[in-house]
Amino acid sequence: MSEPTKYLLDEGRLPKAWYNIQADLPQPLPATLHPGTLQPIGPDDLAPLFPMELIAQEVSTERDIEIPEPVREIYRLWRPAPLYRAHRLERALQTPAKIFYKYEGVSPAGSHKPNTAVPQAFYNAAAGVRRLTTETGAGQWGTSLSFAGGLFGLEVLVFQVRVSYDQKPYRRAVMETYGARCVASPSTETAYGRSVLAQRPDHPGSLGIAISEAVELAAQRADTKYALGSVLNHVLMHQTVIGLEAMEQMAMADTWPDVIVGCVGGGSNFAGIAFPFIGQALRGGTRARVVAVEPAACPTLTRGRYAYDFGDTGHMTPLTKMHTLGSTFTPPGFHAGGLRYHGMAPLVSHLKELGMLEAVAYTQGECFAAGVQFARAEGIVPAPEANHAVKGAIEEALRCKREGRAETILFNLSGHGHFDMAAYQQYFAGALTDEAYDEGELAASLSSLPRIPAEA
Amino acid sequence: MSEPTKYLLDEGRLPKAWYNIQADLPQPLPATLHPGTLQPIGPDDLAPLFPMELIAQEVSTERDIEIPEPVREIYRLWRPAPLYRAHRLERALQTPAKIFYKYEGVSPAGSHKPNTAVPQAFYNAAAGVRRLTTETGAGQWGTSLSFAGGLFGLEVLVFQVRVSYDQKPYRRAVMETYGARCVASPSTETAYGRSVLAQRPDHPGSLGIAISEAVELAAQRADTKYALGSVLNHVLMHQTVIGLEAMEQMAMADTWPDVIVGCVGGGSNFAGIAFPFIGQALRGGTRARVVAVEPAACPTLTRGRYAYDFGDTGHMTPLTKMHTLGSTFTPPGFHAGGLRYHGMAPLVSHLKELGMLEAVAYTQGECFAAGVQFARAEGIVPAPEANHAVKGAIEEALRCKREGRAETILFNLSGHGHFDMAAYQQYFAGALTDEAYDEGELAASLSSLPRIPAEA
Repeated sequence: MSEPTKYLLDEGRLPKAWYNIQADLPQPLPATLHPGTLQPIGPDDLAPLFPMELIAQEVSTERDIEIPEPVREIYRLWRPAPLYRAHRLERALQTPAKIFYKYEGVSPAGSHKPNTAVPQAFYNAAAGVRRLTTETGAGQWGTSLSFAGGLFGLEVLVFQVRVSYDQKPYRRAVMETYGARCVASPSTETAYGRSVLAQRPDHPGSLGIAISEAVELAAQRADTKYALGSVLNHVLMHQTVIGLEAMEQMAMADTWPDVIVGCVGGGSNFAGIAFPFIGQALRGGTRARVVAVEPAACPTLTRGRYAYDFGDTGHMTPLTKMHTLGSTFTPPGFHAGGLRYHGMAPLVSHLKELGMLEAVAYTQGECFAAGVQFARAEGIVPAPEANHAVKGAIEEALRCKREGRAETILFNLSGHGHFDMAAYQQYFAGALTDEAYDEGELAASLSSLPRIPAEA
Repeated sequence: MSEPTKYLLDEGRLPKAWYNIQADLPQPLPATLHPGTLQPIGPDDLAPLFPMELIAQEVSTERDIEIPEPVREIYRLWRPAPLYRAHRLERALQTPAKIFYKYEGVSPAGSHKPNTAVPQAFYNAAAGVRRLTTETGAGQWGTSLSFAGGLFGLEVLVFQVRVSYDQKPYRRAVMETYGARCVASPSTETAYGRSVLAQRPDHPGSLGIAISEAVELAAQRADTKYALGSVLNHVLMHQTVIGLEAMEQMAMADTWPDVIVGCVGGGSNFAGIAFPFIGQALRGGTRARVVAVEPAACPTLTRGRYAYDFGDTGHMTPLTKMHTLGSTFTPPGFHAGGLRYHGMAPLVSHLKELGMLEAVAYTQGECFAAGVQFARAEGIVPAPEANHAVKGAIEEALRCKREGRAETILFNLSGHGHFDMAAYQQYFAGALTDEAYDEGELAASLSSLPRIPAEA
């Protein structure tokens, strides 16, 4: 019998705890600052937006944070997720490398996002919260929070970036199926949304604007809190179930990754696959190369500055130190909506500065070509975001071929593309452009980063 | 620890043979007749359309037909498929019944259809065929054959029913991702298509017309054959991997179904889950109730006649004895396109006559309500076709509640609804009508069934 195609874990082997990489950092994360005082914030500053349990996770330095049983019960609807050996892709590439991919598209929402949506909904419901607000770009996160909120009896209000709202009505239908309400952002439901619309009635929206709207509503009502799908420490930590399972599955396959590849937007799926492996290296264990793949049109890690910045466009969030293109930067309208964010998770940024990971950027045309090659070999049609990870993995496999090295490559296939077929249609029609950002706009955006006295 | 949510089989436990129910029939299937001579057809009559291996399977009475290793290799991309215990749905219904569902949406195409598309592509490629033609309604079958054909280097040409082609452009994009060509039917590529368009240029198409077009092209070219996604004996047999796996998984769950539920259009997913269990009963083993759920707008088993009829509208196919609404019957345009067929698989029809299964019909509104209830409890958004099975299972669970019986219900969740969200959108907007067929048209269609002297 040939080597297996997939490695499945019994649900009894679902991780019992998330891995918190803050326990293993050689230097702690730079403090998060209050946007008014520029002083480090405390738990009380975040309390209007998040339940105390999540705020505690945000700053915890405990290595293992127990996954509550009601969360594990829901994880079992799709977890542990399968690890695949990409036999057919390897043959198509004629590479001596072994390519493995962890597939997160098996979740009800079709991506890794429910891994954090479910615990976020759980902790909010446990704290007596009645309603959650959030933003969504491509729709993956909004779908996931709609699903998770419904399971815990929470009302969910999703601000969907206008351009996605119009392009992807089916994503909205999924959110409604799960019982959520979804409005286009900028909207008339918030003061900030109204101010944006007053300046430009046909504004296409951005993640930064949608975040401002969701935060504004949550800050106003005691029964309402806000949920973020990426960037924050606790969100990245929830995603580590991906890498923890992959470690068990790599052991089943009797090998260990030489290279780990993930796509990065805010950083959560990348952290999910990579942090458990990086943590092992930080503790003196085996070290793999770790490659973060980002879109050339929004190159936060490869072209951004490591500096304090706002998470949103309306400047309502605290300031965090991260790789950023500047909070006023508006990336061109390419299809990997989930990667269209001006900033990068502080933890990912910090680890980049510590030399624990590399970053590379590809155009969307290159990434779609990789995605189609993958689909024809392996069957699964990846989401445009995941195509970046596929492209990164294929490049590593081709390098192995050139170098004659039989390395083991592990990448995270963070979601399927079933709701993104309009983008594939454009790709086949030759209508997909590799839109470049405006260098002048980037320079202006970077030059208007907030000035932090302590940084001077 | 509570009872598991899902039962996974290792890929080493993928079935090694399909189950052929023809081995266990107390009376053989009525012969298939040549439409011209009205005499039983032989293998040579089918040779222009199908490779000899599939023709042999069509009439075989061997119980176990070995699954070729290249087919099993591809099955392993998603099989064995998971069996779920619907804990949350049971709680929502407050039923004493145990509800299990086999989930076929994990395949690359998102439904059970690749179970037969892969072996059909394999046997055609092995016979030297270069090109396959087929029809598709909702797009599930066209997607599956595109996927399978691509893996074996075959060109695939899909005739998609015009109304679906226009409503679901994303399905077409998936077919193109797998490398297939997809045209709207009726088309100008065939004489039959042109004749239909000449009568009615804006004809919305039907499965029967699309079959005629695909068959016409295949019959004309020696390097081209035809592939059908349901109805035929060999197609139903390929689907029995569903039920064979489910039997192992029910044993893992330490229970056995009292009731088995599936939705029926042509009959293939239903046969897949049910035939291995029915076969056990035919051999004198445990007998479960078996319930086929069909749409009220196309009630083949509950309102059709058991008679010889054509499989297509252009009357190019042989005559088979089956439950039929008449080959000229055009069902109203409801959303479960995969169930919109005038006939029923001869094997399913025969087993109905033998008293081995029951049939029930529901409106699409009832079925969407059931699908939404399911999605909110279990996470997965079912395809409109699969909603019929969900509705059937929920009705059985509610019966158990009324009767205070803790029965075990098994149903087949044949596919996800990711490409059908426009239908859910209409459902939420209250714009979904329960279109009824025209009783006069049904009577006319039934009265024009072909006359078979031997049946008189």
